[in-house]
Amino acid sequence: MTRYFLDRMKAEQLEDASGHRLHEQFMTIAEIGMTKNQGSRRMGYSKEEEAAKQQVIKWMEEIGMTVRRDGAGNVFGRYPGQNDSKVFMAGSHLDTVPDGGHFDGVAGVLTALEIATLWHEAGYKPKYSYEVAVFSDEEGSRFNSGLTGSRAFMGMLTEGEVDKYKDPSGQDFDAVMDAAGLDRTHFLDAEGPDYPIEMYAEVHIEQARQLEEKNLPLGIVSGIAGATRTSVVFHGEAGHAGSTPMPGRQDALVKASEFISTLPQVAQGISETAVATVGKINVEPGGVNVIPGEVSLVVDARDIDVELQSALIDAVRNHAERTVEGSNVTVDVDLTTRIMPIPIQPEVIEKMEQSFERKGLSPVHLPSGAGHDAMAIGTRHPITMLFVRSIAGISHNPAEFTHIADIQQGVRVLQDFFENY
Amino acid sequence: MTRYFLDRMKAEQLEDASGHRLHEQFMTIAEIGMTKNQGSRRMGYSKEEEAAKQQVIKWMEEIGMTVRRDGAGNVFGRYPGQNDSKVFMAGSHLDTVPDGGHFDGVAGVLTALEIATLWHEAGYKPKYSYEVAVFSDEEGSRFNSGLTGSRAFMGMLTEGEVDKYKDPSGQDFDAVMDAAGLDRTHFLDAEGPDYPIEMYAEVHIEQARQLEEKNLPLGIVSGIAGATRTSVVFHGEAGHAGSTPMPGRQDALVKASEFISTLPQVAQGISETAVATVGKINVEPGGVNVIPGEVSLVVDARDIDVELQSALIDAVRNHAERTVEGSNVTVDVDLTTRIMPIPIQPEVIEKMEQSFERKGLSPVHLPSGAGHDAMAIGTRHPITMLFVRSIAGISHNPAEFTHIADIQQGVRVLQDFFENY
Repeated sequence: MTRYFLDRMKAEQLEDASGHRLHEQFMTIAEIGMTKNQGSRRMGYSKEEEAAKQQVIKWMEEIGMTVRRDGAGNVFGRYPGQNDSKVFMAGSHLDTVPDGGHFDGVAGVLTALEIATLWHEAGYKPKYSYEVAVFSDEEGSRFNSGLTGSRAFMGMLTEGEVDKYKDPSGQDFDAVMDAAGLDRTHFLDAEGPDYPIEMYAEVHIEQARQLEEKNLPLGIVSGIAGATRTSVVFHGEAGHAGSTPMPGRQDALVKASEFISTLPQVAQGISETAVATVGKINVEPGGVNVIPGEVSLVVDARDIDVELQSALIDAVRNHAERTVEGSNVTVDVDLTTRIMPIPIQPEVIEKMEQSFERKGLSPVHLPSGAGHDAMAIGTRHPITMLFVRSIAGISHNPAEFTHIADIQQGVRVLQDFFENY
Repeated sequence: MTRYFLDRMKAEQLEDASGHRLHEQFMTIAEIGMTKNQGSRRMGYSKEEEAAKQQVIKWMEEIGMTVRRDGAGNVFGRYPGQNDSKVFMAGSHLDTVPDGGHFDGVAGVLTALEIATLWHEAGYKPKYSYEVAVFSDEEGSRFNSGLTGSRAFMGMLTEGEVDKYKDPSGQDFDAVMDAAGLDRTHFLDAEGPDYPIEMYAEVHIEQARQLEEKNLPLGIVSGIAGATRTSVVFHGEAGHAGSTPMPGRQDALVKASEFISTLPQVAQGISETAVATVGKINVEPGGVNVIPGEVSLVVDARDIDVELQSALIDAVRNHAERTVEGSNVTVDVDLTTRIMPIPIQPEVIEKMEQSFERKGLSPVHLPSGAGHDAMAIGTRHPITMLFVRSIAGISHNPAEFTHIADIQQGVRVLQDFFENY
């Protein structure tokens, strides 16, 4: 039963003191909110998330970092550099989805902390002061949102948005803040810091299997895709499945299926990084013996470049309209959500490639299809991201696993990147 | 607002005494169980269905018919013919779906009764005694079944089947029978009659718009399709819609959509009468941003000929298997239901064509895709069916409508058919 987290951790091969420390820290955080099936449950703004933050604060203070909290509960531990006019920042989050794994988010916080610890041990001072950030409620499981702490930090959250928040138990934003020892005014004023962030770095598990397939421990994120959601509703005409002959039917599901089955080609026609998915479909009236009269679905389409993303949105719309052309079925297409992609500067990628090479690793580029805290920070500051190999690509699941040795490669490369910046 | 039943009935053009009588009878039955929006609610074995039967029994007795009930609550009114060794039978049902229309079923009962009434007025005696049948619970809304009365009449219902029955209020079969003044023993012994049925005829509204499109009041049913249900489950692999690149995805919905979008051609490749429909689809896990890992759907496929139906079943299976060929998605195909089609003898169709011609009507052939009481009777006796034009093809809906003048064409043709048999 080595698929379980604790057995897998016990079987880990640890090569050096840094590996042993990371292993112990992952185990310590894992025990906070561990579920029956060895998964993790640390919802944003829960006691468990706060306990994990307190543990990290303790480790920060043990190496002399100065710790600051903001109005959104975010944690910043500062390790002093040669120059205080700007900061390097690295981090991620400690909250998880309700039955998640032990690496999503935690890997970013602990690699960032490990770099400070190694510098502290070596007595090394980076060019700029270095902050390790722990952002609150990245998963958004608490309010069915996402990037709550990092967006508050960037001043991107409005009174209007938090007014709509309700957590799974029905508590509103103010009640949740109150229980977490926070309040609305300071939350909305969390925006900071007043000093320039020279570079924000985030190490994250890949949550896919490209690195595993390429047999590589680490990849350079080439950009963070912006998710778009397009609602597509096909209107046909319901009828009896037995008494309506095939010619002349206006079957909304047949048309929706034409659309879905050829959507992959549409995405692949835009770019190598474009993705488009239909994950949910509703068929009306939904009887086994009734021709579908109406089908509604949502297309989740993403790309890492703003222009490619625009082209993808247009292509989805055109594809839907072309699908019904010459038929009696009609279609309504509505772009309901568009999150802008966050580019990563070519010169930053180039510097990261050099770090890979210096550490004897082959630099491979991967788009990030999912959102991460770096996405909020990247709206105004330069960012870089590294992906670490995920076993079988499994994530948001107790079976999520990443080897400590691979995480250490992330520590080494990111440390080198900052040291040679 | 002439789309409402009462306004439409008021506007009907009635040409003769028979038309006036049919109009009055339709209005009288319509008032039993009329819903707020002028639809009809006469569930099988309800007080309303029984009240409608009692009304028809009253009309039968007014023209001297002898009325018999069987253990399934079916009503048989006998008009004596020249010869009692066999019977002609014609009829249909008086129950409706919960918010149905006023013609489905009723049209078959009232045309059958009108023929007896016209013969009674003319003092005409048909070759064989003539029975007008009212079968119980044809729609099956009571027990989520169908053809309950006519199948009991044919000895096709078993103890095992009725043991599973539950009505929408949770009552079991025995409780419903008890409330209807019936009982299990007599119900299961309803099988009858012990005299040969020479021909069963049923006039039914078309419930589709082929006759309307051809501008014809009446059509000859060429056969009753047997419904088959095939469960098709596509197994792929779920994954994050953002972080999983398009190549290498195992999207179960993309494959299911390929299957659905090309299913119409598969059916049309079998015959002109074959139909195949997917009316219901379930996508797992069903998240907007999750690649579907499993899709299950049901194919409702029908044809009017046994061999064509077999070929259709095989074609659906082959189509599913071909769809996943060369992909990582797998498929399970399972034929869960197969109702045999009921053929109508070519010589019966020919005789009916002659009746059409004698009545100045152009004989057109239509397959019956839906089940009717004739389907149960047709398992052992010769049958014939006529379809009457349905306005806009609407059925099982308060807006269901058929002109009295068209129903009269059904009376004339069927009367001629029996008189010249």
